[in-house]
Amino acid sequence: MEYFSITYENRDLLLYLNDNFASFFYNTQPMTHMNFDGQQRIAIENVTPQIQEGRYAIKRVEGDVVRVEADILIDGHDLISARLLLFSQDGNLVEESPMHPFQNDRWWAKVSLPKLGGYYFQIMGWVDHISTWQHEVDAKVKDGQHLKVELRQGIEFLLEMRDKAKNNSIIEKGLTLLQSDETYSEAISFILSDDMTSLIRQYPQKQFATYSPQFPIWVDRKKANFSAWYSLFPRSTSRELGKHGTFQDVEALLPRIQRMGFDVLYIPPISPIGHTHRKGKNNSTVCQPGEPGVPYGIGSELGGHTAIHPDLGTLDDLKSLINACHAHDMELALDLAIQCSPDHPWVKEHPEWFKILPDGSIRYAENPPKKYQDIYPINFETSDWQNLWTALKDIIFTWASWGIRIIRVDNPHTKSFVFWEWVIAETRKVYPDMIFLSEAFTKPKIMQQLAKVGFTQSYTYYVWRTTKAELVEYMEELTQSDMKEYFRPNFWPNTHDINPYMLQSGDENQFLIRYFMAATLVGNYGIFGPSYEYMYHAANAPKEEYLNSEKYEIKWWDWEHENKLTYLITQVNQIRRENTAFHATLNWHLCVTSNEQLFAYLKVAEDGNRILCVVNLSGSYRQQGLIRMPLSKLGKQSWDRYKVHDLLTGSIYEWQGEENFVDLDPYILPFHLFRIED
Amino acid sequence: MEYFSITYENRDLLLYLNDNFASFFYNTQPMTHMNFDGQQRIAIENVTPQIQEGRYAIKRVEGDVVRVEADILIDGHDLISARLLLFSQDGNLVEESPMHPFQNDRWWAKVSLPKLGGYYFQIMGWVDHISTWQHEVDAKVKDGQHLKVELRQGIEFLLEMRDKAKNNSIIEKGLTLLQSDETYSEAISFILSDDMTSLIRQYPQKQFATYSPQFPIWVDRKKANFSAWYSLFPRSTSRELGKHGTFQDVEALLPRIQRMGFDVLYIPPISPIGHTHRKGKNNSTVCQPGEPGVPYGIGSELGGHTAIHPDLGTLDDLKSLINACHAHDMELALDLAIQCSPDHPWVKEHPEWFKILPDGSIRYAENPPKKYQDIYPINFETSDWQNLWTALKDIIFTWASWGIRIIRVDNPHTKSFVFWEWVIAETRKVYPDMIFLSEAFTKPKIMQQLAKVGFTQSYTYYVWRTTKAELVEYMEELTQSDMKEYFRPNFWPNTHDINPYMLQSGDENQFLIRYFMAATLVGNYGIFGPSYEYMYHAANAPKEEYLNSEKYEIKWWDWEHENKLTYLITQVNQIRRENTAFHATLNWHLCVTSNEQLFAYLKVAEDGNRILCVVNLSGSYRQQGLIRMPLSKLGKQSWDRYKVHDLLTGSIYEWQGEENFVDLDPYILPFHLFRIED
Repeated sequence: MEYFSITYENRDLLLYLNDNFASFFYNTQPMTHMNFDGQQRIAIENVTPQIQEGRYAIKRVEGDVVRVEADILIDGHDLISARLLLFSQDGNLVEESPMHPFQNDRWWAKVSLPKLGGYYFQIMGWVDHISTWQHEVDAKVKDGQHLKVELRQGIEFLLEMRDKAKNNSIIEKGLTLLQSDETYSEAISFILSDDMTSLIRQYPQKQFATYSPQFPIWVDRKKANFSAWYSLFPRSTSRELGKHGTFQDVEALLPRIQRMGFDVLYIPPISPIGHTHRKGKNNSTVCQPGEPGVPYGIGSELGGHTAIHPDLGTLDDLKSLINACHAHDMELALDLAIQCSPDHPWVKEHPEWFKILPDGSIRYAENPPKKYQDIYPINFETSDWQNLWTALKDIIFTWASWGIRIIRVDNPHTKSFVFWEWVIAETRKVYPDMIFLSEAFTKPKIMQQLAKVGFTQSYTYYVWRTTKAELVEYMEELTQSDMKEYFRPNFWPNTHDINPYMLQSGDENQFLIRYFMAATLVGNYGIFGPSYEYMYHAANAPKEEYLNSEKYEIKWWDWEHENKLTYLITQVNQIRRENTAFHATLNWHLCVTSNEQLFAYLKVAEDGNRILCVVNLSGSYRQQGLIRMPLSKLGKQSWDRYKVHDLLTGSIYEWQGEENFVDLDPYILPFHLFRIED
Repeated sequence: MEYFSITYENRDLLLYLNDNFASFFYNTQPMTHMNFDGQQRIAIENVTPQIQEGRYAIKRVEGDVVRVEADILIDGHDLISARLLLFSQDGNLVEESPMHPFQNDRWWAKVSLPKLGGYYFQIMGWVDHISTWQHEVDAKVKDGQHLKVELRQGIEFLLEMRDKAKNNSIIEKGLTLLQSDETYSEAISFILSDDMTSLIRQYPQKQFATYSPQFPIWVDRKKANFSAWYSLFPRSTSRELGKHGTFQDVEALLPRIQRMGFDVLYIPPISPIGHTHRKGKNNSTVCQPGEPGVPYGIGSELGGHTAIHPDLGTLDDLKSLINACHAHDMELALDLAIQCSPDHPWVKEHPEWFKILPDGSIRYAENPPKKYQDIYPINFETSDWQNLWTALKDIIFTWASWGIRIIRVDNPHTKSFVFWEWVIAETRKVYPDMIFLSEAFTKPKIMQQLAKVGFTQSYTYYVWRTTKAELVEYMEELTQSDMKEYFRPNFWPNTHDINPYMLQSGDENQFLIRYFMAATLVGNYGIFGPSYEYMYHAANAPKEEYLNSEKYEIKWWDWEHENKLTYLITQVNQIRRENTAFHATLNWHLCVTSNEQLFAYLKVAEDGNRILCVVNLSGSYRQQGLIRMPLSKLGKQSWDRYKVHDLLTGSIYEWQGEENFVDLDPYILPFHLFRIED
């Protein structure tokens, strides 16, 4: 079996093909049109958008239009032409559009991406000798020169066109005029006519064309950019106190979750839970009989990652839940945690996939001096890595065969980057609609790298960005730095691992504000429920964790309860769906305010939908101030009047020009959600 | 013969080897250490400094130290180590230095470049399992744990080291301690000792190392960064009125030019000049009998680019001049103008190297409607381009065989980029000390591209940057944008083609100021003399050209004449040589002033030499104001006193802190050139 290898000669991460492994996404396309010789005179430089000269794919969603730009350069004064080529992942030319110069030797073209999948774009440029000739004829005629050899050049150009065109009466007309001495002035008029210009565009002389490298684009389905996640522990869904919840219990909750407006239901691992060193309530190392254990202690004698915890139900029950989600306009997301309990079948079947210590034991997880004896991490340095990778891929493919198309990945930053790059690319070849959410709460560049190698969405630092300065800086980084090409944020005000300090006092306004910003700053967000909407806030102080966390025990909730949070979540999710400005993240713009407790931002959609959110960050005190509207983004002048319509309260205010007054009493509602009307 | 080809599969501009043509600089090194498998866990990203992921070489000079940085990332929590490798162009490892982490997963190392030539740097990173183990032992011991398996791991690590080290008593000592149950606490002490840390550094376990791509560096000799050019027409050097000057006449002027402090003497083309359509005085299309023609009308029946105009002398005379220049601490620069007069031998020998029109004639140079019938441009799209390239390379190699190591290239922007990239790389393989100056006055990105593909120095827009705002913006672009890695500016306040509007009035102060800034803003500068120092300013109005230009006629000059300009040039060149702050361009820093007519800038050398220049840009009016010194760059506090010593006048002022007063009366001298003393 041929080994995987990276050849840096190709400056590409490249796992060579062998019998069992396909190559990476990045190198599957045939490299077309690549011949070169010294007659090429065009240079194509500084192509945007791209990441590291095409090393990683930029990300877009179905229906997006990409504006590609490049410096296209030539020696001397000849005119040039250029085209933007779009290839599908399998190397077929999908679209070819002319590029247009705009300033300083920079050219642009737009390309539409109607369908999900892998693409490459490439720029070709060539010396446009025919246009150059036409331009010169114009200058010489204006100078009063009588032309002769130029007409003969024109005849040569037209004859070449005739070879390509076969029957074209305009070419014939031109040839007749240029070939006769008696129609000199008509010939000149013809050369300078729109007819000739059209012919040049139609039958370009593309010899010695230069081609840029090919730059990859990965196009996801729209949910990659716009989704509202609800997460819960299925075992906490029984209506009966003390009883283990089931997939059927979850199914019964779907109308509630749909009503609240979520479209992704994410559940922690559903595999059998190990017994050895099982953790008890509140992460106790002593487990009392009957305690359910942590869903992340994956695997038992009943099976591993593709087995199902019997207390949750059967595979058929899971498939029924998957289908029921679809029936409620939702999708079920499973949780991929690549680690094993000591009872996972792989421990016996593949001990070589773990780290074996000199005493022959398997190394459990440690963060010295802390020990996690219920968890065996996978050793990605195993010499049997090819079989390991295949087995991990098979988990994803098995889930996919059940109908799963969204996977939340637990701690991806403790597994190797190159594995993720490979497994995500492999999955997408068969399931291009698969969405991977990276649950990496770690150092910034590690989170970025995981997004670069392919994760569709990423958890963020949102929980820890609470002041206006922090929020502004973070939003600008996400929407204006290089990250915008590959890192799609998913904002969570809480998770089952994180009970944020901001919320530990149980202040309803903080729950409202943190929810509202998550849902309106970016396209993707989620909450861990029903802790969030029911404002559960008991903390395992001084940590940012829940007391009596559902990770370690079964909880009973009154799922019928409604409150200000459930009402507001329902409203905001409906407004999000109805207003296209919310369907993207990169259309976010900060608005300057006169009060540092007022955080205001504008989102503008291409279809004209415009949303202004204003948040009273203090939570507790009434705040007033002026909001400065970026009028140019609204297409308005300083004297224009326009209406802002608070979609949450129904109030409509008439505003004028740039600066307008806002008054937010948090005990009414700590934010406005305005749609801007004309 | 195998064809040249670019394979973009390799993402590299690559001309394949064949019998006559060597490959590009960029691909000659053996790609070492490149094996990869899925066990690699390190990612190396965002390496600096580099251009387009290594597509072009960054430029440095002998003696430079490069600080390389990169993000070096790993999954999980293991410690990592990294090294910076420097390879010579032929693939030999020249230096290997440890890299150091500093912040946010970014690592650095410095590498010295003592010798000119081509280099590649590369980063390797690996998981440092031994350091990780040492670190964990420390944490566990502090937690009070009794260790057992960790000692066995230690024995394995030490045994591995023993295999590499053969005889090392410290390893033996460690093994003894770790292997005995009775020396537990000594064993722990040993593991945490500096001895163990040294062993880890000395015998690293570098399995599964990841290698970055290789990034090219081109190291020039120091003159690439620091040179003072003087250009003249040799035919205008005769002491006898009306007589054609010779190389011997030039030789007689060398003491004068050396005294003024120049170290490059550049002369326009010295080839025989064509007769057909020869231009007369002031670019007249009618040439009177006896008129000498334009040196750029290259070639006659006496020969082409490697022949010598008989009126200038013989090849021996030229070689004598070359040697005499060396004897005067100067170098002679020749002028490569790739174009032919209609009488150039190539026109008959290689008509296919020119553009043949449909009537069989060769196309002369045109910028329609303008015609330049005395010049035939080369057609770089010729199918015989390989022989053409070889012939052009041969010109350079012939000149090099005479002793020429500096070439000013006329209008390189009208010849193809790929030719320059090839010919410069080919030349450097044999003559790594060759300097190419790009005379491209054209669009910004074209000028940049020529520098990227290899030109050592470049003419600039300096002539047209006259206001303070223009000068500041341009200097910041040159010293702070990406251009700093590849574009070395050479500032000329005039050239034989450009008689700037600023100087056409003949105002002595303007001549002083424009000279002074050229010589002090950047490392490389030049003047066209003696027009400059003798303030010749008659213009071919309204153009920015000289009236009665030496391009079209022989001029007589009184080379003995001395004036304020010659005195000042002599002084400034001497100060430039003696003060290392002038030996670089990228050490330029703007100083804020309270008066927009005062332009102040600081240059700081690594050896502590610090220069402050203050220019009165008005030229005509006395200007006063405050100069704000960037004290942090001087290592000073606001209460510190220091002296500024005007090296032109000898005056010494005592300054204090940040803001200090300056008064410049242009009719004394319109600038200060201060050395900052402690």
